[in-house]
Amino acid sequence: MGIRGELLTLETMSTLEIANLLNMADQFAKGKQWKSERDVVVANLFFEPSTRTRYSFEVAQKLLGLHVLSFSEENSSVQKGESLLDTVKTFEAIGADLLVIRHPENEYYQQIKDKLSIPIINGGDGSGHHPTQSLLDLLTIQQEFNSFQGLNIVIVGDLRHSRVARSNADVLTRLGANVKIAGPYDWMTGFADKYEHVELDSFLPDADVVMLLRIQHERHDGSMSWSKESYHHEYGLTIGREMKMKQTGIILHPAPVNRGVELASELVECSKSRIFKQMKNGVAVRKAVMQRAITGGQLND
Amino acid sequence: MGIRGELLTLETMSTLEIANLLNMADQFAKGKQWKSERDVVVANLFFEPSTRTRYSFEVAQKLLGLHVLSFSEENSSVQKGESLLDTVKTFEAIGADLLVIRHPENEYYQQIKDKLSIPIINGGDGSGHHPTQSLLDLLTIQQEFNSFQGLNIVIVGDLRHSRVARSNADVLTRLGANVKIAGPYDWMTGFADKYEHVELDSFLPDADVVMLLRIQHERHDGSMSWSKESYHHEYGLTIGREMKMKQTGIILHPAPVNRGVELASELVECSKSRIFKQMKNGVAVRKAVMQRAITGGQLND
Amino acid sequence: MGIRGELLTLETMSTLEIANLLNMADQFAKGKQWKSERDVVVANLFFEPSTRTRYSFEVAQKLLGLHVLSFSEENSSVQKGESLLDTVKTFEAIGADLLVIRHPENEYYQQIKDKLSIPIINGGDGSGHHPTQSLLDLLTIQQEFNSFQGLNIVIVGDLRHSRVARSNADVLTRLGANVKIAGPYDWMTGFADKYEHVELDSFLPDADVVMLLRIQHERHDGSMSWSKESYHHEYGLTIGREMKMKQTGIILHPAPVNRGVELASELVECSKSRIFKQMKNGVAVRKAVMQRAITGGQLND
Repeated sequence: MGIRGELLTLETMSTLEIANLLNMADQFAKGKQWKSERDVVVANLFFEPSTRTRYSFEVAQKLLGLHVLSFSEENSSVQKGESLLDTVKTFEAIGADLLVIRHPENEYYQQIKDKLSIPIINGGDGSGHHPTQSLLDLLTIQQEFNSFQGLNIVIVGDLRHSRVARSNADVLTRLGANVKIAGPYDWMTGFADKYEHVELDSFLPDADVVMLLRIQHERHDGSMSWSKESYHHEYGLTIGREMKMKQTGIILHPAPVNRGVELASELVECSKSRIFKQMKNGVAVRKAVMQRAITGGQLND
Repeated sequence: MGIRGELLTLETMSTLEIANLLNMADQFAKGKQWKSERDVVVANLFFEPSTRTRYSFEVAQKLLGLHVLSFSEENSSVQKGESLLDTVKTFEAIGADLLVIRHPENEYYQQIKDKLSIPIINGGDGSGHHPTQSLLDLLTIQQEFNSFQGLNIVIVGDLRHSRVARSNADVLTRLGANVKIAGPYDWMTGFADKYEHVELDSFLPDADVVMLLRIQHERHDGSMSWSKESYHHEYGLTIGREMKMKQTGIILHPAPVNRGVELASELVECSKSRIFKQMKNGVAVRKAVMQRAITGGQLND
Repeated sequence: MGIRGELLTLETMSTLEIANLLNMADQFAKGKQWKSERDVVVANLFFEPSTRTRYSFEVAQKLLGLHVLSFSEENSSVQKGESLLDTVKTFEAIGADLLVIRHPENEYYQQIKDKLSIPIINGGDGSGHHPTQSLLDLLTIQQEFNSFQGLNIVIVGDLRHSRVARSNADVLTRLGANVKIAGPYDWMTGFADKYEHVELDSFLPDADVVMLLRIQHERHDGSMSWSKESYHHEYGLTIGREMKMKQTGIILHPAPVNRGVELASELVECSKSRIFKQMKNGVAVRKAVMQRAITGGQLND
């Protein structure tokens, strides 16, 4: 099932496959060089704004020697009413070997994947999945602790709207970590029955990883009942809370950060923060994912 | 007359030149590799939205090893009121060896071509011409029938607003085909005196090529007097009409398709459809056109 | 102070450094080839529309063999409220070796430069500086006169809103030229106390260089008290005024030109105009600036 090399979600991937991908990514993070010897055309189709994901894919692709097409909705025939299917079939027809897609609709790939003969790399679907983001989170944790077994990890904040909360929680659990959740209880829909909801203040001394999620103001329709200040005070990683973390604990955030909301502005680059390391790892992960897609799912070079 | 290698319209090109270009394109379609040995900078200047044309030019250019500048009106000094002439002169001054231009104004190139020393490749002018689209239509027909002599071809739909109807009808006639037209009579302005207007239902059994045109909703100013359904029923290629076509007949459409209007959605990928093959051929044609422009009009490699 | 290879403003650069940069640029203008042997990623971050600056940087970069990321505000996480600092830190994290930034805010770089470990090349800040534009102006003058010593140069027009007037006036004076200013007295704020304000009609016969500035309609808030025609008649370079210039005098303009305002449309390509040569020189200057940034400030190849 599925085209070799595609990456839609981590949920259907075995822990062995994930471990292999992470090891390959780690080699890239450590400086491994690899360039495609044949012409490979990649189309990056972004139907939503993005900086980190879009450009880290592009850096990865260019450093691997691929030809990159950079598509945004605004200047395209989507303006003439063209459907997603017709758009992706067009890119396949004009020679794309591989598609990276970000789209606002959950599981947009279900309507197109069986009609394509080239792999899709999911760059984020609605509030569904974002597998390369999950992988870079995992890589950052692995680099820190070598193993996931027994790690105490708390995912904090807007889980309901998050693209990574679900797959991170699932995969981390499969990999042996103890996953907890924290934040406004209303935002735990779909999680509260599977994961223990904890108070940040009491859990922080035990946490190895504090995984903050971005409040997606653009996905809340004016219904958020906290001011930024009161959210920060109630659920955010304040300077006071950071001091409760153990020495070896680390802070993750997918960015862009709402400074002073999810965490205090001063903590973005603090010694526990791995936020910029996550971005750096994003390039390594995307190199591995690209190489896997190009070589048809094989990861041995 | 004209700069060597330019391509503004097929109407001033001899059938011999067209045949040469098609043969070169066909070699690329069959896998010919060619890369420029010197640095060549191409600027793609798109003053209208486009997916197929824009990205198939870009794929062709990148696979030929060219440096590609991708210009859209929105982020440019056109916002400061800069004229088309000053924009193209700027790209010439900063080192572009070649310009690909799409512009909403008919024959925009008349105001600029004599003031440039580099060739223009016309990527579509208003409702005027679109020579690379015509060439890819021709290539697709040639691949199917080997010759144009005596072929029965019907061009269907919004001829008045089409960029390719005029030059396709003209070139196909010069190449020996019998060209007919079909669709709402009001839309035949400029064609009805030169080509026979036929009923699709009676002509289809004889048609070798059914060349559907896109209804350019964005060029009709709300004056279209049919609903989508009634247009489809009256003039579109319905499933019933497709069954009247002869076994060897093929369906062309420049895309994007208005599914359920110009043709039934189910027919987009039917056995007679060459719609995605047209797109694929678009890359081969544009490689040939680029190589011709770079090598100064010579097509022998 | 500052990161090696950065270029924020010419005002803090010694005349020796400027002379070295100009000589390197002149070699590129004369055909020097240089390509980076290692992978270098450059991010061009444009927070304002631009054609000339953006694409001449891109041509320079591509011809030097660099990997180019082309960022515009519209499709980015700036739409999600991300700050300039977080945006540039992101590009640093994902592997950019070098940033080219244009931003509407004066001295935007003050808030970010000490927080980055990679050099910034200023592609224009508000009405502050535009060092590569200044350098291309200087290169064009140097190619014409070999030296700046004793040259009579008049800067004409909207000095107050100009990105280059201030640094050009300063640098040219340091290099030995006699700099005068002309145009509406109200527009001389910040200049009138340092430079002699002259009447164009009486100064033109002595002028070696007439440096026209673009009227930045987009920076005037409807407060301009002249019609285009009356401005042209009063302060513009009319055909009559051009005839008063000496044989060896040249005309510069950063473009885009408001034809019929700053100068008569017929003069844009007249024998005294160096406007398109300036653009061509812009690529040479940017190659030199890129090479300097990549090689860490060294200009000997």
